[in-house]
This record gives sequence, structure tokens and C-alpha cells, in this order.
Amino acid sequence: MQRCVWQRTTRIVIAALACALLAAHNPQARAQDNDNPLHTASRAELDIVKVVLAQEKAWNAGDIAGYLKAYKDSPDTLFVGRQVSKGFKQILDDYEHNYPDRASMGTLSFSELETHPINDTYAICIGKYHLDRSKKLGGGADGLFSYVLEKTPEGWKIILDHTT
Amino acid sequence: MQRCVWQRTTRIVIAALACALLAAHNPQARAQDNDNPLHTASRAELDIVKVVLAQEKAWNAGDIAGYLKAYKDSPDTLFVGRQVSKGFKQILDDYEHNYPDRASMGTLSFSELETHPINDTYAICIGKYHLDRSKKLGGGADGLFSYVLEKTPEGWKIILDHTT
Repeated sequence: MQRCVWQRTTRIVIAALACALLAAHNPQARAQDNDNPLHTASRAELDIVKVVLAQEKAWNAGDIAGYLKAYKDSPDTLFVGRQVSKGFKQILDDYEHNYPDRASMGTLSFSELETHPINDTYAICIGKYHLDRSKKLGGGADGLFSYVLEKTPEGWKIILDHTT
Repeated sequence: MQRCVWQRTTRIVIAALACALLAAHNPQARAQDNDNPLHTASRAELDIVKVVLAQEKAWNAGDIAGYLKAYKDSPDTLFVGRQVSKGFKQILDDYEHNYPDRASMGTLSFSELETHPINDTYAICIGKYHLDRSKKLGGGADGLFSYVLEKTPEGWKIILDHTT
């Protein structure tokens, strides 16, 4: 299953190790970040990419609760989309309201992921998303997202998600 | 001049002290954050609001360099808009390219500012912006922004700006 996720992810830019892994699974994978020559990916970078790819996998399995596991279960967690959602509970409720069934979720793919560690505890991850969905169900979507993640005892968790 | 800035800012939500200050200057100011009852604004919250309002003031004075002072002068600073800009230099270049003269800048106003401290060194600030500009010059714009700010020796500085 992990391999399927790698294969679906068409263009991932993070760092040398992750790129190498991806390239092995996907010849289309390429480094686009000219300002950031290949370097050895840190443990944090790899762990964060895993969190994001686990989101993609959960989404495409129709598992919103699984998708939401990437977010910190805190009243302070923020989601900025067309509106601002505050707190894990509201974010979950909004997702469940906006995507009431498997068909409405379409197929999600992330690409051009970049992690930017801030310090040992916080990091930024930016990337692109593509949602493939029939017109009847609302149509597809493309955009950018930025996450702020915190390293918690349960692993890296999103504390701010701004999705355009 | 500070008072003029407060007056132009139509709806600011941060916390009790800032709300009280704003309400004194603007009867339209109102707390919209039902999940966040009034509390005493921290020093950090007030300092961050000052940074954002100084941006508004600089922008409306046609001072892009002044506006950019809110950003950390680092190659790691990120701007996410329609594209991703990496590093202070590129962000400045992009602003200067996109807004070549005073007229193209229009009039900017921020509203519904909320600061969410992460810890003593990092904070999130979200809010709305409105750009008033003639159709001839590209038209107006409305959207949401999220900032991640770092407390540096030079004060709070934006390290990530995601503007929708």
C-alpha cells in the first residue's frame, strides 16, 4: 500500500533521501527547488512527509477520521480555507459535513512537498494538492497548502492548515 | 498616526485589551470569536498586532520596503500566494514587480486579526485583508491570510505568509 501512495504522488520535492526513494518508484519525480539543492533529509523531514502521505492514503480510502489524525487534537488547531475553522472538533465536523460520503471525497494527490524545519519542535510543510472528482459531485480542485506542524508525543501533528 | 491606523481597521478581534482600544476608536469593532472569550491580551499579541498594522500603514503610504520590514530577512522566509516565493529577497522582488507604483498598490485594510501564540518564540496570526483598487489597475481583492511569526532580536517577524 505504501508503494501505491508513492506511485500516485507525481512530484515530490523534499530532499535527497526522499527524492531518491520517490525517484525509484516514479521516474517523473524531479527536484524543482533550485534554491534548495539536494541535501540529506532529516528524520523530521521524512517523518513529516510520512504524515502527509498517510493523509493522502486515508483520504483515498474514504477515511476522514484517519485523515484527521494528522491534526493535533487541540482546541487551538486552526484550519484556514474559505473560512477559518478553530479547534480539532470543528475541523472534523466541517470535513464530515463537506464530504458526507466516499464519492464526494474524490481522489486526492499531494505533490511538490517541501518541509522547512523551524526548530526541533516545529516545522512548516508546503505543497500542492489535486482533487480529482466528477463534475456532478462538485468537480475537481487544485491549490496550495501550508501546514505548521508540532512534534508531539504522538508524532508530528498539524496545528495550522491553510489550504487555498 | 497610530490612532489613524486603529480607525481604519474596521473589525479587529484579538483580545480584551486590544478590543477595548479598538472599540474606543471604532464602534463597529466587535468580538466575533465565540470560542475565545475576551481575555487580557498578552504583550506578544499586542506586539504582533502592531507589526500587522504597521504593514497596513506602510502599504498605504506606498512604502513596499516598509511593508516588507514585517518579514524576517532570511532565505528561509516563505510566501505562499498563487505561487510560492522563497526567501526575503525573492518576496521583496515579487512585491516590487507586482506593484510597480503607488497606484497599483491601492488601499489595503486588515480586519478580524487574531493572534495565536504557539510558545514564547513563535505565534500564528490570521486575519482578513481587503484591497481597494480601481478596475483599471487590476481591481480590488478580498481574502484570508495566515502568518507564522518568530520573535527575533528585531521584534516579531513573519517567517511564513500564506495569503489567499
